[in-house]
Order: sequence, then C-alpha cells, then structure tokens
Amino acid sequence: MRDAYHEELDSIGEGLVEMARLVGSAIGRATTAMLDADLKLAESVIEADKKVDDLQHDLEARAIALLARQQPVATDLRIVVTSLRMSADLERSGDLAQHVAKLTRLRFPERAVPRDLHATILEMGQLAQRLMAKAAEVIITKDVDLALQLESDDDAMDLLHRTLFQHLMDDRWKHGIETAVDVTLLGRYYERFADHAVSVAKRVVYLVTGEHADELQADIQPVQPVAGVEGA
Amino acid sequence: MRDAYHEELDSIGEGLVEMARLVGSAIGRATTAMLDADLKLAESVIEADKKVDDLQHDLEARAIALLARQQPVATDLRIVVTSLRMSADLERSGDLAQHVAKLTRLRFPERAVPRDLHATILEMGQLAQRLMAKAAEVIITKDVDLALQLESDDDAMDLLHRTLFQHLMDDRWKHGIETAVDVTLLGRYYERFADHAVSVAKRVVYLVTGEHADELQADIQPVQPVAGVEGA
Repeated sequence: MRDAYHEELDSIGEGLVEMARLVGSAIGRATTAMLDADLKLAESVIEADKKVDDLQHDLEARAIALLARQQPVATDLRIVVTSLRMSADLERSGDLAQHVAKLTRLRFPERAVPRDLHATILEMGQLAQRLMAKAAEVIITKDVDLALQLESDDDAMDLLHRTLFQHLMDDRWKHGIETAVDVTLLGRYYERFADHAVSVAKRVVYLVTGEHADELQADIQPVQPVAGVEGA
Repeated sequence: MRDAYHEELDSIGEGLVEMARLVGSAIGRATTAMLDADLKLAESVIEADKKVDDLQHDLEARAIALLARQQPVATDLRIVVTSLRMSADLERSGDLAQHVAKLTRLRFPERAVPRDLHATILEMGQLAQRLMAKAAEVIITKDVDLALQLESDDDAMDLLHRTLFQHLMDDRWKHGIETAVDVTLLGRYYERFADHAVSVAKRVVYLVTGEHADELQADIQPVQPVAGVEGA
C-alpha cells in the first residue's frame, strides 16, 4: 500500500507523462499541418498549447505544495526538484510545436516549406515526436538504457538539421530569402524540441543513477561531434 | 543579525546576480567580437561560459541542500524554488551568448554580419546587455516597477527583430542565403536572451507580489502585440 505522499509523487510523474504525450502529439500535428498547409489543424495545435501550460502550472503548484507539506529529503527531494525541471522542458517543447503551427498560419494559404524539403522536415517532425514518446517511456520505466538511446536519436536529428542547411546553402536554392528564413527557424524549432526531450531523459538518468548522462555515455561510446552552424 | 539560514539564502541571491553579470558581459563581448570579427574575443566568450555553468551547478547544489537541511515553507520555499528557475534562465542566456561567439568563430576571418546590419545588431546586443543588467538590479532591489520596465524594453527588442526581418525580406537583400541564415539565427539568439532576462525579472515580481507580472502589467498598460514571424 502506498501512502498519500507517494501517491502524490506518482501523480506528479503521471502529470509529466501526460505533458510529454500532449507535446509529442502537438509536434506531430504541427508538422502535418505545415506540410499540408492545413490551417484548421494548425489552429488546433496553437489552441491546445494552453492545456500544456495549465498542466505545468498545476504540476508546479502540486510539487511546491508537496515540498512545503512533506519536506522530503534525499531521493524524494531530488525527484520533486527534477520534476519541476522536466515540466519546464516539456512546457518549452509545447511552445516550439506551437511556433511551427504559427508559422503555418502565417504563410497560409501558401506552404512554408518547399516540396523538395518535405521529406527532410517530415523526418524531423517524426523523429521529434518519437523522441518525446521515448522520453515519456523513460519517465514511466526509468529505463537508463532507453534514456541513453535518446542521445543517439538526437545525433540523427543533428544530421537532419545539417541536411536542411546543405539545402539552404546549395547554389541551386531557388526559394528565396523568406523561405530560407522560415526553414532556418523551423530547423531550430525541431532541434530545440529534440534537445528538450533528451534533457528530460537525462534528468531521469540522473535521478536513477546519481550520475549525469554524459558521464555514463562517455563510458559506453564516444560521442561524434557533428560539424555545422554551432548551436543552430 | 542574520542566521545561517538567511545568510545561505542571501548567498544564493548573490550567485544569481553574479551569473547575470557574467552573461550580460558575455552578450556584450560576443556582439563586439562579431562586429569586429575578433576571434580572440569570441574564443574568450566561448571559454568563459564554463564559469556560468559551474556557478549554476554550485548554486543548484546549494539550493537543494538548503531545501533538505532547512525545509523552508511559504515565502522562503518559494524563494528557493524560484532561484532554481532563475539560474536555469541565466544558464541558458549564457549559452545564447556563446552561440553568438561560435558563429563569429565559424565565419572568421569573414564577418557574420554585413555592414548595413551592424547598427541593428549592435543595438540588439546593447539592449540585451542592458536588459540583463536591469534583471540583476531587480534581483538585488526587488523593485517591481523596474521589473515591469523590462517588458517594455523587450518590446524594443521585438521591434529591432522586426527591423532585422525587414532587411532580410527586402528585395534589395544582396548578401545571399548563408548570411540570411546567420542573421536569422542571430536575431533569434538575441530575442531569446532578452526573453530570459525578462523571465528573471518576472519571477522576482512573482516572489514579491505573489502575482504574475502579466497580470500586474495588464492593470498598468495594454500590451501592444508586435506582428511578424511568430515565435521568431
């Protein structure tokens, strides 16, 4: 039997999983809306982000109430503080999905992304959604191996991001500056979204092992740096 | 006389002010390095970000130790939790200053920014630095009026960002795609840096008044939305 305290702690975990589910769905829908220039779907993504924000506020309030009431120490304290950070990552991911949807709305009825980049953007959107689904699974299972997998998935996102830049920098680019600006921002949104999913997983690793994911990762495989525009 | 507990709380506040000072300096130096194509200065900004990261880790460890040892409630608890969030904002601002410096390094010996955008980028850099200086002052003084001022300063940043986009979208743009991509990312870095400074100030408002800054702001003056690329 679980006591009220641990039930509350569990329910915070469930809130995080629900947030991850919502923002994962949002980035998938936002990508579809963009590639189809579907204004209605884009509007629904923009609208739905409020739900994510509400969940975050609720979750934060409960985490702080738990700190005040139960005054957890050691591992439990670390769980609550880490949950606050994860909720911030997830809230920000929701914003990024919303940015994709807003760009779709801004360019409607035109498409923000030219045809020859659809495949790359679709892949970025799918990968982003998959990363977030895995992050949710990591929150539920606390599976450290799965969490470390997210980092190599993130390398795949970096490669896609580079592909996008190669298209942009290609002399045969014929879509003009406005589209180049849009595509640059989109690439950044997907990449940051992926970063936040990885960050969520890393925080779980830290909770479970007490070690930062980078240290564990270094023992397992050398990380290949991806060249390109720094921080893009 | 202050007890050990409040001394520790004060020292966390001092850590935040020091982080704000460092990242404010970093964005100023990164801007100078970029406009002068000064590789050495850019390298020093990149290197110095480690100090910000170390400060954040140290500050977080102390905040969590304080939670465990002293188990604060009510206002004190809110201060500690909010400090954790502010340190995350400041750490991220440091990353953004570093991104500006890394772009300078990537394009060296070329300049990342064409001459006709120097004035705008300089203004964005200066405003970003000023916003962070004000955020530090808000942490020290807990001055709610000053905190609310940051939001109108941030409107000025949005305007500068729009100016940058107008240059990009102008048919007479002659700097090619690579520079358009660089300038798009730079605009985003400065804008996000400013957002984080505003966020720090807002968190202080929330600590002092228990109200979110947006609610207070709404009582004082209607916020004028700035059109343009959403979330850019």
